[in-house]
Amino acid sequence: MLYFENDYSEGAHEAVLRRLIDTNMEQLPGYGNDRYCEAAREKIRKACGCPEAEVYFLVGGTQTNAVVISAVLKQYEGVIAASTGHINGHEAGAVEYSGHKILTLPQEAGKITAGALREYLEAFYHDRNCEHMVFPGMVYISHPTEYGTLYSRRELQEISEVCGQYEIPLYLDGARLGYGLAAEASDVSLEDIARYTSVFYIGGTKVGALCGEAVVFTKQAPRHFITEIKQKGALLAKGRLLGVQFDALFTDGLYLKIGKNAIETAETLRRAFLDKGYRIFLESPTNQLFVILENEKMKELKEKVRFCLWEKLDENHTVVRFATSWATKMEDVEQLAALL
Amino acid sequence: MLYFENDYSEGAHEAVLRRLIDTNMEQLPGYGNDRYCEAAREKIRKACGCPEAEVYFLVGGTQTNAVVISAVLKQYEGVIAASTGHINGHEAGAVEYSGHKILTLPQEAGKITAGALREYLEAFYHDRNCEHMVFPGMVYISHPTEYGTLYSRRELQEISEVCGQYEIPLYLDGARLGYGLAAEASDVSLEDIARYTSVFYIGGTKVGALCGEAVVFTKQAPRHFITEIKQKGALLAKGRLLGVQFDALFTDGLYLKIGKNAIETAETLRRAFLDKGYRIFLESPTNQLFVILENEKMKELKEKVRFCLWEKLDENHTVVRFATSWATKMEDVEQLAALL
Amino acid sequence: MLYFENDYSEGAHEAVLRRLIDTNMEQLPGYGNDRYCEAAREKIRKACGCPEAEVYFLVGGTQTNAVVISAVLKQYEGVIAASTGHINGHEAGAVEYSGHKILTLPQEAGKITAGALREYLEAFYHDRNCEHMVFPGMVYISHPTEYGTLYSRRELQEISEVCGQYEIPLYLDGARLGYGLAAEASDVSLEDIARYTSVFYIGGTKVGALCGEAVVFTKQAPRHFITEIKQKGALLAKGRLLGVQFDALFTDGLYLKIGKNAIETAETLRRAFLDKGYRIFLESPTNQLFVILENEKMKELKEKVRFCLWEKLDENHTVVRFATSWATKMEDVEQLAALL
Amino acid sequence: MLYFENDYSEGAHEAVLRRLIDTNMEQLPGYGNDRYCEAAREKIRKACGCPEAEVYFLVGGTQTNAVVISAVLKQYEGVIAASTGHINGHEAGAVEYSGHKILTLPQEAGKITAGALREYLEAFYHDRNCEHMVFPGMVYISHPTEYGTLYSRRELQEISEVCGQYEIPLYLDGARLGYGLAAEASDVSLEDIARYTSVFYIGGTKVGALCGEAVVFTKQAPRHFITEIKQKGALLAKGRLLGVQFDALFTDGLYLKIGKNAIETAETLRRAFLDKGYRIFLESPTNQLFVILENEKMKELKEKVRFCLWEKLDENHTVVRFATSWATKMEDVEQLAALL
Repeated sequence: MLYFENDYSEGAHEAVLRRLIDTNMEQLPGYGNDRYCEAAREKIRKACGCPEAEVYFLVGGTQTNAVVISAVLKQYEGVIAASTGHINGHEAGAVEYSGHKILTLPQEAGKITAGALREYLEAFYHDRNCEHMVFPGMVYISHPTEYGTLYSRRELQEISEVCGQYEIPLYLDGARLGYGLAAEASDVSLEDIARYTSVFYIGGTKVGALCGEAVVFTKQAPRHFITEIKQKGALLAKGRLLGVQFDALFTDGLYLKIGKNAIETAETLRRAFLDKGYRIFLESPTNQLFVILENEKMKELKEKVRFCLWEKLDENHTVVRFATSWATKMEDVEQLAALL
Repeated sequence: MLYFENDYSEGAHEAVLRRLIDTNMEQLPGYGNDRYCEAAREKIRKACGCPEAEVYFLVGGTQTNAVVISAVLKQYEGVIAASTGHINGHEAGAVEYSGHKILTLPQEAGKITAGALREYLEAFYHDRNCEHMVFPGMVYISHPTEYGTLYSRRELQEISEVCGQYEIPLYLDGARLGYGLAAEASDVSLEDIARYTSVFYIGGTKVGALCGEAVVFTKQAPRHFITEIKQKGALLAKGRLLGVQFDALFTDGLYLKIGKNAIETAETLRRAFLDKGYRIFLESPTNQLFVILENEKMKELKEKVRFCLWEKLDENHTVVRFATSWATKMEDVEQLAALL
Repeated sequence: MLYFENDYSEGAHEAVLRRLIDTNMEQLPGYGNDRYCEAAREKIRKACGCPEAEVYFLVGGTQTNAVVISAVLKQYEGVIAASTGHINGHEAGAVEYSGHKILTLPQEAGKITAGALREYLEAFYHDRNCEHMVFPGMVYISHPTEYGTLYSRRELQEISEVCGQYEIPLYLDGARLGYGLAAEASDVSLEDIARYTSVFYIGGTKVGALCGEAVVFTKQAPRHFITEIKQKGALLAKGRLLGVQFDALFTDGLYLKIGKNAIETAETLRRAFLDKGYRIFLESPTNQLFVILENEKMKELKEKVRFCLWEKLDENHTVVRFATSWATKMEDVEQLAALL
Repeated sequence: MLYFENDYSEGAHEAVLRRLIDTNMEQLPGYGNDRYCEAAREKIRKACGCPEAEVYFLVGGTQTNAVVISAVLKQYEGVIAASTGHINGHEAGAVEYSGHKILTLPQEAGKITAGALREYLEAFYHDRNCEHMVFPGMVYISHPTEYGTLYSRRELQEISEVCGQYEIPLYLDGARLGYGLAAEASDVSLEDIARYTSVFYIGGTKVGALCGEAVVFTKQAPRHFITEIKQKGALLAKGRLLGVQFDALFTDGLYLKIGKNAIETAETLRRAFLDKGYRIFLESPTNQLFVILENEKMKELKEKVRFCLWEKLDENHTVVRFATSWATKMEDVEQLAALL
């Protein structure tokens, strides 16, 4: 069976695992106060070009989104997101569980636009009843998006400017950030992201770690953020587990390097589909490939390949997703190509 | 520096780590649907003598408490606990964050009694205003308790009977369960716990794992419990991380075995303190030793040993805690003894 | 100044106020246990043709929606509503504050359709990831809607059937129910509503009372619903205030009678607008009239009339709302007509 | 039947009701923006000697406590209260429902002391684990307390000083404030309360109104407090209902005047009990009288008098509460005295 179902089907990258093994019996303080967490924080600050950043480690993506969003928002505020944003559809209502509404904007290939954002905010503050409504208190974007697409630097900057004008923090969900940074088509660097957002996270779970996401507050973390993390059940006793992994991921540029493999295998796969005359549902320059399959072909492929059903296109066609990752082998791509 | 500060200062037990290494590059489904999670579940069911049990893996203790308690309670209910219960004092209000009150009972050496519980419940239902009060919807106990003490089988059974009579589920927090099961003084087995509780968890973080707790619903889990876990940000994409570890911990009785080391080193340390004429603050048969130190001595020890300040006893004395674990070396105990 | 801004600009209907005066010094038990609450409950059950119904009195509409919805939903569930539903846009996130997501369906003149509902539910349960999503646990409709429109009996029945098939309770927000029942164009009676819904509320605040809404659970209220009400701060010590008012409103059919005045004045006003060549934005058979005004005319009218800006239509036109109520005087309508 | 069960068994004071009648058909804006709300605010600011105060009207006591406390606290904070505080025992967990823990201090006759408060705060900030605990973010006191007792000016001042030192707002629950202000034994004025607290509320429901409590932020209200009120379902469409009543209560010192009747009737009743040799359970200078009754006598009295069972004292005695109010008639007191 060939696995293209998602980007978290293996354990950790070899170098990450090696570090866990090497440090395993060291006696270290708990809760993220160990030397590996500190080293990882410092390396991340450097990689972001943001020496003042405050960095925290959490365990998974939904958890990170819920903890960050609820810590930043005031009770009367909600978070603006694309209707296709992960927080809106696939996190079991974690944001709402924290008491906050998601205020959706229409999406274009998974993205929101600065124009639509500005329009929303203008309309909100012009509404004479806005005191009876949920105040917009944060803007959430994902990069790469749920469709594997990317914001350009210009788009990021424009969204950031609208946020700045309304004094609303911009939050970037980087669950797959490594694949966004490695994409050839992208002009957005980690420094750009640190420059244009108030807070973002660097995804580990999908990019080489066993688990773990690094939250970067580019200016200042919310007060007593550790207590907020603890209160949401997100503070690891053995915080080292996250520190050691991110220390490894940010040593010698590993994080950026392992992103490349996902991009290259995805690109090879993309070309294979095109060569065989398949239609691509949506152009995406990262590690997720959305392809339109005839239902017959889909059934046939399913026998030998694991992939992800995305949505029904029409009676005879389905949109499916093939995902690559840091661990995808080019041989597997070639074997899949041979089945097309 | 000698470490007796807590029971989570090392990484994972060697056999656990070994399994993570061996399975690392296997391609597995996410979210706990892999074969290792399934194997671990089956082994745990067997160890509990509870073939019908539903087993789930979560990441840490506070998270587990908050997810289980909030999933079981109805909105108008709270959870009864000893005033010293971990959920009441040291989880940053995680239970209250989920919207539920903790209804405290007085503690004796960290434990509640069946008698006090019955009295509370009788008084509650006799109060003509009970509809304006928080209904008791669960009983929380920890075993070992926060003071390292243990319930006897008889005590467990009695509490369980009161719960049964009022149709209130009994929940046992087993963050350090391995050390409770290994304690010589204890007559409580895993089967007993499965028999007398509705739900409990088997602590991994403090007993040999990098992270992870196994929740056991002895009869039936709440409906859509996976969605509840996801909603609280507690569902790991790479659920294998937990399954593999618990599979290792429940292979060849490892979990019970590694508890022994903590008990033996604690007992040796306890005797060393007594031999040197120190006073024990509270008798506890597990891996936590509460000792009364003169402040002068405390300062002196602090130079060479990490331990935990518990509370001020009087102007000249302080209660401190020394914790052992699966990883504690007898040499370290001897070195500490030599400093007394 | 002529008031057509909303339907809550006066106090209580004379007969309601009279009852408050007459009963004022009677000594009565608190929290809704008085004889007037009981009498009102009985009269409402009778008017609904639903002798088994459980009736509760709450203070206002947003409160009622939040208390009912959060008491009925399980934690992993959300409520389906039209995107224009009051709970979605104008209640400051009260439902989300209770921890639940609103799952929006497209609206047509403020209404949802049975077809769109069925499609949503089918798609949800076909999604292989539905465990990572918010489960649909209730359907919310308003009648009249926020646009003053009404469901037909047939439409209600069809929505009710879809709900029944998926075992999802149907909840009807009747903030302006009196005006819906009095509308000539409507074939929906109070008995129909009781038959097709699991729970609904009969609005008092906008239909003759100082404050108050009567919640009717047609089969069974959630367990300990009084405690839920108390917990949300919605239980009046002097519950009589609500019981007395609803007793008056349901004596001699007053509730239905006073609806008529709103309908007649609205209809007269509607004809006046049409006669003068104004365009109606949306046909609505109840007490809210949505008219398209030229901005110039709007400014001119504003000097003498209070009405409600709804939305900008284009550069030169605005949609505005004129609302009538039980208290609207036909003279005022005529004076307004003269200004057109 | 004689009623001494509580202080909310009648409707509104005559003068309050009169104002509701007189203003009933005036057309007024909603949500507290009418002229009566504004007038009432101004009168309250004057009565408090606090021209900068921000005043809001809410409907009931539990609601007010929940809305104020949750709006002031940050998510990682809880509220300190006496274990007997109304919020801790008799509000169905409304504060916890808002996500916040109540941190209890021991009570003395329903009160907390500045000393115990200081000790708690010192210990908290000395705890090396305080980041894993709920931060104290507000101090709640009730005046009169649940036992009818009162803080002296000196006690208030001292508590206020501790709060100031730790920058924690002091909140005073004045559900029965009118009876506290009218008590002869008290040296605390409305100005004192405004001086020593950050926020308090003036109870209307139990002191002459049909419903309603006036919240006074002595310095500044939380941002967008109206939206918080709306979100909690506590914003009345016909806000006039509260404004008109408080306008009446604060016209010509009515609020203070009607408190006197409760005090005088309670004092007469108290003397009657003492004259007949009954034991008073707890000295309280306001409108609640806690008396120890022999169970036989209690049963006998119950036939003719409604009062409130407080708690069992021993096998043969029960503590019961007799409450007077603005509406209590001296004849009723005399009739009750005759039954003793």
